[in-house]
Amino acid sequence: MKASVLFSSGKDSSLAALLMEPFFNIELVTINFGILPTYKFAKETANKLGFPFKVVRLEPNLIEEAAKMLIEDGYPKRAINFLHHTSLKVICSQPDTVVVADGIRRDDRVPMLTKEQIRSLEDTYNISYIQPLMGYGRSFVNILVKEHLKIVEGESDKIEKADYEVELRSFIRKQYNKGDSIVKSLFPKHIQSHVISRRYS
Amino acid sequence: MKASVLFSSGKDSSLAALLMEPFFNIELVTINFGILPTYKFAKETANKLGFPFKVVRLEPNLIEEAAKMLIEDGYPKRAINFLHHTSLKVICSQPDTVVVADGIRRDDRVPMLTKEQIRSLEDTYNISYIQPLMGYGRSFVNILVKEHLKIVEGESDKIEKADYEVELRSFIRKQYNKGDSIVKSLFPKHIQSHVISRRYS
Repeated sequence: MKASVLFSSGKDSSLAALLMEPFFNIELVTINFGILPTYKFAKETANKLGFPFKVVRLEPNLIEEAAKMLIEDGYPKRAINFLHHTSLKVICSQPDTVVVADGIRRDDRVPMLTKEQIRSLEDTYNISYIQPLMGYGRSFVNILVKEHLKIVEGESDKIEKADYEVELRSFIRKQYNKGDSIVKSLFPKHIQSHVISRRYS
Repeated sequence: MKASVLFSSGKDSSLAALLMEPFFNIELVTINFGILPTYKFAKETANKLGFPFKVVRLEPNLIEEAAKMLIEDGYPKRAINFLHHTSLKVICSQPDTVVVADGIRRDDRVPMLTKEQIRSLEDTYNISYIQPLMGYGRSFVNILVKEHLKIVEGESDKIEKADYEVELRSFIRKQYNKGDSIVKSLFPKHIQSHVISRRYS
């Protein structure tokens, strides 16, 4: 059975794909909004992991819309949830899509879908949406990552990965007056990961 | 890494074990309260699936306590959650236990642990508790079960499996005046499954 895994090259989406691998034909799918070519990092990681890879391009105006939400709210929750939900809807609507997965963990707060959004996604697009890590906590995900993957970790603005935040930050920096300080205040620095390859024991 | 999977011989706990199999050394663990030898069905299924199997025996007074809750409440939610939570605590406290899993799905209502109960379980016993099916909905679980397992399905009082409900029903039938009609009114019939073996394609 084919499964499309929403992929950022971070440790969560990589581990989700690994856990599904024995049971599905995995295709990694990275979203790009045309702001920065972040999909290049994702493609490189996908090749190293040995999974087929696809970029799905969405309109930059979605990033513009998310930036407005972010600045209106003063924190990224609604903006990131909007980009994640929109990305999932686009992936679910692609031809020949039957199973769509992402790397959301039990203790993630953002992005997160409500039960109603999940039900609507499955009913509208006639697909199964799964979150393979939803039953796993952060510390155990880290144990499995250490066992199966080689990663680099660093502050969120220095790690090269293909998540929404990178393009959103870049858009605000370029398009907004004092964009740089807006980004600094709205995205507190946190540790991000980028997967290099599998770890073979 | 060793993982103990709470096992009833039903399709959910069997599928949870199958999904974990490529990454863990699975041991299936069935709880028995000494009311009925339901673990025999679980042992048979465990053998067919090819997993090591263990019975953990708990005191019958826990079933007595659960029966009181059930009759007080008029529905099984609190009683089943109590038995599930107690069973998990006992499994987590066994020597050499590092990972404990069960077959709870995304849309299960009972049994279900709160985030606080999960955190407490992991912190108290220094284990990782995982729910491999928590990111999977009912209909997709059924698709995976069909692909990987042979099952029999039937009304809940006719299927031979090793879940708490079977011993709880039996206890009430024997110990309470008009126990049979109490059981009929408190446990609405529903379709249960019992796993026979793997399905090899």
